[in-house]
Amino acid sequence: MSPFTINPEDCLPIYQQLYRHIVREMSEGRLREGEKLPSKRALAAHLHVSQTTVENAYTMLVTEGYLIARTRSGYYAAHLEPLLQPIAKEEQTKVFIQAHFRTNAVDTTLFPYSAWARIQREVLHGSKELLNHGDVRGDSALREVLCKYLHEYRGAQCSPEQIVIGAGMEYLVGLICMLLGAQSVFGLEDPGYPKVRQIVHNHGRPAIPIPVRAQGMDLDALEHSGATVAYVTPSHQFPTGATMPIAARMRLLTWAHAQPERFIIEDDYDSEFRYLGKPIPSLQGLDAQGKVIYLGTFSRTLAPSIRIAYMILPEQLLQPYHEAFSLYASTVSRFEQQTLARFIADGHYTRHLNRVRSLYRRRKEYVVAALRASSIAQYLEILGENAGLHFLLRIHGLGNEAELMTRLRAAGIQVHSLREYTFDPKTYNEPPALVLGYAGLAEDEIDRSVDALGSAFNL
Amino acid sequence: MSPFTINPEDCLPIYQQLYRHIVREMSEGRLREGEKLPSKRALAAHLHVSQTTVENAYTMLVTEGYLIARTRSGYYAAHLEPLLQPIAKEEQTKVFIQAHFRTNAVDTTLFPYSAWARIQREVLHGSKELLNHGDVRGDSALREVLCKYLHEYRGAQCSPEQIVIGAGMEYLVGLICMLLGAQSVFGLEDPGYPKVRQIVHNHGRPAIPIPVRAQGMDLDALEHSGATVAYVTPSHQFPTGATMPIAARMRLLTWAHAQPERFIIEDDYDSEFRYLGKPIPSLQGLDAQGKVIYLGTFSRTLAPSIRIAYMILPEQLLQPYHEAFSLYASTVSRFEQQTLARFIADGHYTRHLNRVRSLYRRRKEYVVAALRASSIAQYLEILGENAGLHFLLRIHGLGNEAELMTRLRAAGIQVHSLREYTFDPKTYNEPPALVLGYAGLAEDEIDRSVDALGSAFNL
Repeated sequence: MSPFTINPEDCLPIYQQLYRHIVREMSEGRLREGEKLPSKRALAAHLHVSQTTVENAYTMLVTEGYLIARTRSGYYAAHLEPLLQPIAKEEQTKVFIQAHFRTNAVDTTLFPYSAWARIQREVLHGSKELLNHGDVRGDSALREVLCKYLHEYRGAQCSPEQIVIGAGMEYLVGLICMLLGAQSVFGLEDPGYPKVRQIVHNHGRPAIPIPVRAQGMDLDALEHSGATVAYVTPSHQFPTGATMPIAARMRLLTWAHAQPERFIIEDDYDSEFRYLGKPIPSLQGLDAQGKVIYLGTFSRTLAPSIRIAYMILPEQLLQPYHEAFSLYASTVSRFEQQTLARFIADGHYTRHLNRVRSLYRRRKEYVVAALRASSIAQYLEILGENAGLHFLLRIHGLGNEAELMTRLRAAGIQVHSLREYTFDPKTYNEPPALVLGYAGLAEDEIDRSVDALGSAFNL
Repeated sequence: MSPFTINPEDCLPIYQQLYRHIVREMSEGRLREGEKLPSKRALAAHLHVSQTTVENAYTMLVTEGYLIARTRSGYYAAHLEPLLQPIAKEEQTKVFIQAHFRTNAVDTTLFPYSAWARIQREVLHGSKELLNHGDVRGDSALREVLCKYLHEYRGAQCSPEQIVIGAGMEYLVGLICMLLGAQSVFGLEDPGYPKVRQIVHNHGRPAIPIPVRAQGMDLDALEHSGATVAYVTPSHQFPTGATMPIAARMRLLTWAHAQPERFIIEDDYDSEFRYLGKPIPSLQGLDAQGKVIYLGTFSRTLAPSIRIAYMILPEQLLQPYHEAFSLYASTVSRFEQQTLARFIADGHYTRHLNRVRSLYRRRKEYVVAALRASSIAQYLEILGENAGLHFLLRIHGLGNEAELMTRLRAAGIQVHSLREYTFDPKTYNEPPALVLGYAGLAEDEIDRSVDALGSAFNL
């Protein structure tokens, strides 16, 4: 590794400079797999900085997979597959990034600051009772307005008693894993959410990959898989963008009805953003036998940092839920629950949704138009663009997936390929495709990003 | 069951009137174990109310164990052991309650409204970046101030990298269960937190009861138990109030150091409220080998509804943590994390702690004095009153535990007995003791509550 010197002119903190230096050393081959790094103490002494500074850089590198920490031994450079080089965080390598199509960003300028701040203030001063423990399922005010909202907009059939509020999908999916018991076997969409795989694995439940086709999860494959729980994203499959048509929905319900231990987890994460055609009713609303656990979140419609998600439990799971979690406390601050409840009840939420939906639709049209006018337009195929905050971009005739991703990364374009969302990326051999998130990009950033995409191929 | 009629004069909502009616029918023997209740539909039609109203009452009764719901059959009166009759919620039976010594309440008038509201407003308007996803461990600003605070006040030895913020103890203990793997066996304090037992059980890990003595967890028993993880509340054992002395702490650490798979979970929940003597250093700060997972929360010092807890992970668990939870998002809203971070950094938190500590000390002295001046003073022994927000009240010579609790309940006194916190209440045969929480009671409420206690015995 070449020596690192602190640049006092650099606006980045020292630990980020050090982080960047080590990433560069690794990607340019001067720090190779298995090489040991200087100890935190030695490097800190050498640079005249605190040990915490070095530690911050090292821990960030470990977190992102660049380094491996061996207990009581030290830090070593990790093996980096050319294709699987971790993507550095935006703020840490700002200088190099030409485009960043994040799938989990939203446009933060759309956040309804003034209404939110006003309601938040009223709630804080409104009731001292809000400082004590509330219902484990969440405050009844929020469960009631949510119930009404979900009935009106998603055709959900439920009572407020069936709604459970939780601090994010991870938490609720964890509760579901515990609720459905150790015998349950999860059938997960492939490609799909790596996060869901991680949660199911952490709870010690088996996860079986079920291929995703043009109509969503392959129901023949599900039928033969031995899975007892199907986790699906029927409104806008993540990441392919497929929408499950009504016939397939009915067939999936029939699958669940056939065995008492079978359940469906309907992750309706992007249903608010449908740009074309009528929304298809939720599985939950179609189900007459209490087999669907419905999941939703405010991460995409309000902001990812507002940690409020919810689920609808079927009636038959209410008693097991109360038995298993009677002593738990809700994971969401009651201030935020009450703020959100009033925000919805006063009509701000539907107005906000209408506003952001039409804005995101225009933005989506803008990206699609920019891609169709770009220098590589003839190589591109756009899929799943009628809903959600991302779409799939298949790229034909510009090389195989490995070549493509190497080229994009070298050009400073941060984007995930569809392959990265599969259970077994090694055996993936579909045509290369990118998962393009655009919600966090303003129009001028879209122009620049699409230009950068073309330039990456010298086209 | 005698017929129920809606009382339009009653300020309680109809579903709560119905709830109260059924509880009364059961406790007075007019509705017996196994009897079927009218269907929701029939009762709603009979009373000319919506089905949801009846449903709300029934669900509340199921939740609290009065009724049993049988799928596709209906609702049945449950078996109520005279001693284990669920305690009705305060607001639902307000008219009957003479005293309520809750252990999980705090004095909500102490909440630092103005500072919190000001910082909250500044944070909301301060940075749009806060709307996007942050670090899974929690915002670094909060982890940094917490690290400093825990070092100064609890002698903790850690870097901000080791701190993980989570939405409540339940969530963090759940993460620990997953982190320590399926082979771990939990040794839990007996008596102790029923909640911890529930969490460990929900994660499918075995839990072994370890008796609690005057010095906290019985370390001989732990040694012979086969447990690999010891969950302890050393500052102020819940619920006995025992403090683990330094020699026992060192011995517990030695136990953990003896085997690689052994860990200690130090739940330091009440350490902020020590009224006498110097605080004993945390186990975490005494441990040189990375065997202690330290847990803390703001539920008791700020408010139970602020769902922010934290843990310090030993360095050797950082890599497993990042592997298991790399794709999770933090469970706490970034707005609240940043508000709390500034609240601590600006010195509000330590000022607030000093204020509430001295107020709770005076309140504790007031309760103790009231008990010592009460008509039943000669029967009482107070234990564990030098720390925390509850103490133990042993009652000698006023009957056995069953008689005592029946009498208290009949007199409208809501209080938990020590027996309710044991693994096996049936075999419990220590002298009767009450777990008396006083933090939520003002002085006049204390007077009334202690009077009611005396009156319950006609003394």
